[in-house]
Amino acid sequence: MKEKSVRTSLLLDFYGSLLTDKMRRTCESYFYEDLSLAEIAESESISRQGVHDTIRRAEKQLDEFENKLGLVALFEKQQHSAKRALELIKQGDADKAEAELAKLIDNM
Amino acid sequence: MKEKSVRTSLLLDFYGSLLTDKMRRTCESYFYEDLSLAEIAESESISRQGVHDTIRRAEKQLDEFENKLGLVALFEKQQHSAKRALELIKQGDADKAEAELAKLIDNM
Repeated sequence: MKEKSVRTSLLLDFYGSLLTDKMRRTCESYFYEDLSLAEIAESESISRQGVHDTIRRAEKQLDEFENKLGLVALFEKQQHSAKRALELIKQGDADKAEAELAKLIDNM
Repeated sequence: MKEKSVRTSLLLDFYGSLLTDKMRRTCESYFYEDLSLAEIAESESISRQGVHDTIRRAEKQLDEFENKLGLVALFEKQQHSAKRALELIKQGDADKAEAELAKLIDNM
């Protein structure tokens, strides 16, 4: 099992609704509510290994969604661009901010 | 059948890779390449009605993906916000542009 990762939480934000109910519920408990495998196992009345396997399968599916759709990567790129434009405005460089924003809009 | 819509093309951009190969290929021919149902029917060696049904099923699935994920709506909101910020910079209103961009980044 990977450590609880910001990356997986982000994928879950985007694609969680495409998982089965059980997978989504388990992942939300683990990544959002930060419950342990043992705690989830108890509340779901399954083995700790069962929870572990469910999360691994879910992570694999989330990775596959991102490989197919690439929307998290696109959002991250846009976020980077928006932050850069904001920084440029704060520095008083309106021309460069304008160029950065125009690029962001083009990429959308 | 709805008329060939910009909306469906947009959904296809986002979620097309989640469709079956056949659905995606048919939709791309119809919405991107602007082929007629009859032309697609001939190239796929199926009936015109078969093409029609495939496209309707694909449209339904694309709508369901958007209902679950809402990423097209999110992108449209961001695009609107980025355009608004760009407009404000062009008008020389750096403060409002900054506020608009900060809002955009918060929503990401």
